Amino acid sequence: MSASNPIDQHNRDQFLDELKTYLACQSVSTDPAFRSGMDAARAFLTELLNEIGFGNIQELDGGVGGHNALYGEWLKKPGKPTLLVYGHYDVQPPDPLDQWISEPFDMTERDGRLYARGISDDKGPTMIALEALRCHMRANNELPFNVKILLEGEEETGSPSLPNILSQNKDLLKADAILSADGARWRADLTAINVGSRGNGGFEISLKTADLDLHSGRYGGAVPNALHEMARVIAALHDADNRITIPGFYDDVIMPDAKTEADLHAIDFDGVAWTDTIGAVEHGESDFTTLQRLWDRPTLEVNGMWGGYQGAGSKTVIPNEAHAKITMRLVPGQDPEKIRESSKTYIQSLCPEGVQLTFSGDRGWTKAYAVPPRHPLLLAAEQALEDTLEEKPLRVRVGATLPLSDLVRNTLGIDTVMFSFSTADEQFHAPNEFLRLSAVDDGVAAWIRLLDLIGEQTPADYRAA
Amino acid sequence: MSASNPIDQHNRDQFLDELKTYLACQSVSTDPAFRSGMDAARAFLTELLNEIGFGNIQELDGGVGGHNALYGEWLKKPGKPTLLVYGHYDVQPPDPLDQWISEPFDMTERDGRLYARGISDDKGPTMIALEALRCHMRANNELPFNVKILLEGEEETGSPSLPNILSQNKDLLKADAILSADGARWRADLTAINVGSRGNGGFEISLKTADLDLHSGRYGGAVPNALHEMARVIAALHDADNRITIPGFYDDVIMPDAKTEADLHAIDFDGVAWTDTIGAVEHGESDFTTLQRLWDRPTLEVNGMWGGYQGAGSKTVIPNEAHAKITMRLVPGQDPEKIRESSKTYIQSLCPEGVQLTFSGDRGWTKAYAVPPRHPLLLAAEQALEDTLEEKPLRVRVGATLPLSDLVRNTLGIDTVMFSFSTADEQFHAPNEFLRLSAVDDGVAAWIRLLDLIGEQTPADYRAA
Repeated sequence: MSASNPIDQHNRDQFLDELKTYLACQSVSTDPAFRSGMDAARAFLTELLNEIGFGNIQELDGGVGGHNALYGEWLKKPGKPTLLVYGHYDVQPPDPLDQWISEPFDMTERDGRLYARGISDDKGPTMIALEALRCHMRANNELPFNVKILLEGEEETGSPSLPNILSQNKDLLKADAILSADGARWRADLTAINVGSRGNGGFEISLKTADLDLHSGRYGGAVPNALHEMARVIAALHDADNRITIPGFYDDVIMPDAKTEADLHAIDFDGVAWTDTIGAVEHGESDFTTLQRLWDRPTLEVNGMWGGYQGAGSKTVIPNEAHAKITMRLVPGQDPEKIRESSKTYIQSLCPEGVQLTFSGDRGWTKAYAVPPRHPLLLAAEQALEDTLEEKPLRVRVGATLPLSDLVRNTLGIDTVMFSFSTADEQFHAPNEFLRLSAVDDGVAAWIRLLDLIGEQTPADYRAA
Repeated sequence: MSASNPIDQHNRDQFLDELKTYLACQSVSTDPAFRSGMDAARAFLTELLNEIGFGNIQELDGGVGGHNALYGEWLKKPGKPTLLVYGHYDVQPPDPLDQWISEPFDMTERDGRLYARGISDDKGPTMIALEALRCHMRANNELPFNVKILLEGEEETGSPSLPNILSQNKDLLKADAILSADGARWRADLTAINVGSRGNGGFEISLKTADLDLHSGRYGGAVPNALHEMARVIAALHDADNRITIPGFYDDVIMPDAKTEADLHAIDFDGVAWTDTIGAVEHGESDFTTLQRLWDRPTLEVNGMWGGYQGAGSKTVIPNEAHAKITMRLVPGQDPEKIRESSKTYIQSLCPEGVQLTFSGDRGWTKAYAVPPRHPLLLAAEQALEDTLEEKPLRVRVGATLPLSDLVRNTLGIDTVMFSFSTADEQFHAPNEFLRLSAVDDGVAAWIRLLDLIGEQTPADYRAA
């Protein structure tokens, strides 16, 4: 139990000053021109971790020439759980610069929002987590449990070093669970917690029907047209009810548990209004609501398709080649390897004699992720939200793919709970990225409470999960 | 009847010298840099028409800023038919120059072939026609019937001036039929005559399903995908037997007369070998042979189709727009206007709520053309081929579209017979265009004989056609 109240240690002005300093580090991981900004961000964090009281601070190198991750630890609570707190210090490029209202690397407050590149993704949420840890340390000269910190520098470039960093430092990173300061809240007006994300995978298909493009007058009607064949293949991938037709595609799908599903139906969500904002109509499998389609159901999308003449006017050609890029979103239960093979087999079966099919560009094949519904860290996170926001959080999921959770489960064997106070509408990856000022207050309070609650748990609780 | 034999007036060496001079005129109509070559070609032809004995030589201007056509006439046979002999003096650009084995504007003989830009399309065939007229004039001081000459300068650029030239000079160009020195023989090893060509028409369709491209994680499964919708539309345009599904599409199709159809089946043609040469397989409506599919049956081809991401790697986007360019080949009986409307109505019916369909880029909508099977000029042309090549010609068609015949029928009310001695394999529009030397001899002989046979006809024969 706390000797004094950690929240009293929170100095909001000092925190915002430090956040502004951190955001001024131009840590764009994808562009070598920003290397000094990456170095500055790591230096800032090293100093902060040291100030808070973390030790064994070091950089972890994945050995593939990327940006090092930063590690620190405080392990002075034997008998208490050990959690790995994750965040990332790299940000997206600020382009297009002319669309920013204020300087992207100079944090500016307007109308209750803080604007800067990376403030929502993920520097603000990371700093909130570190602030809560500092408040605990200041109040009690200790933390409620054992904490390891892992701050990645390549999240925005697809984490090329992370698999090596995890697999080469299994002992160093050993923990009972991951508590992630990344990930965004779905809506600012809904108290909720993410309990899962869809997986993904995909490939490109190319069809060839002749050695060359052919004149539609001299050959038309008597030879196959690669675009007709591609249209037949793509059209055959969904049935009239928008269900995917790949044999066995839904066989292993595990729908969410009863509580998660009840929470989904409890959400005040207007699918028509939602699609209206993007100029679309509601669409999808008729047996499911829009939120189920987005969170519970696997999908297959053609992301690009092309062949033949695309210029001005017309060209009376029978195209001999057609291409399509296909990706899928997978849900719990689906095995990416099995889906990959069955989808390729099915597509091959759709190509008649005279249509040469080639697969290329495999990507992803990440499993979906679902936090176990009775996981102690999930229960603690829900309790912390209820205690500080005075509202029971709903369990929601994200339709997108967060490879970290699956990667960590595969390498370290532990689960991930996302506890971030950024929101999906905060323009991350776009000009005028912002973080709600209210999220700073809510976030620090909730994180402080969560740390307390984890301190009441034992490693045995986690082993039982 | 001839006072002396016109063929004795044919001086092959002189003819080839003149042809070489004509081919040296760099009459590329599409490129303003070649304007002096266009002028030189008209000057050459003016002198030649004058030398043969044509009068009232003049340039016809369509009033749309293009290249003038050249006109001449010899009308001293009252009571005999009047035929309009057509050819064109413009050629395709010679690019790519580095692929020519000899200079494109310097006629060169190799292995029984004459190489030069425009020699097959259409300077050689035009000169053969004029040579036959000159031989008749030299032998008899007159022609066997009344002749008007129309030599176009914009055939290679889509004949933009020709509609005006025809409609504004109806009296000047009044004739019983058109005898065209353009068009190519299908195969060099087959004595045949073209009796028809397919029409064409087309448009572009664009589908829109949302205001912007959407993230496949955040929206996938719950909104329409423009590429899926496009694939459904395109796939629905043909049935499993490759028949076009547009309601009424085949209702007005008139299959060829019995003789034409019998000739088609008499042709020694190996569809498998033919498609093998282009790396394709035989394909099309199962009730018809490859030649019927090519000549007798209408088609619909997607010439280009695109949408979404086409770059390297993958992008998990749900494309909001998709595009397709569609053209059709039409056969006798089909009304382009009716087909256009019914196809647009049908495509619209394939687009569900939430899919915005836009049509653009209408092109063509030219009717198919068929020479009336008992047309006196067709009968004379067949007889001339039989008399000079000692083989009955077969009636064949071309799957491509020759807008001239339809345009002339609409404006001047007369039919067209193509009597050309170039061949479809002679690389016209490509490097190393050539004309078989044997075609010069066969062509001059056949044209001389044809002129004789027409001289035995009367205008009443044509009015009865």
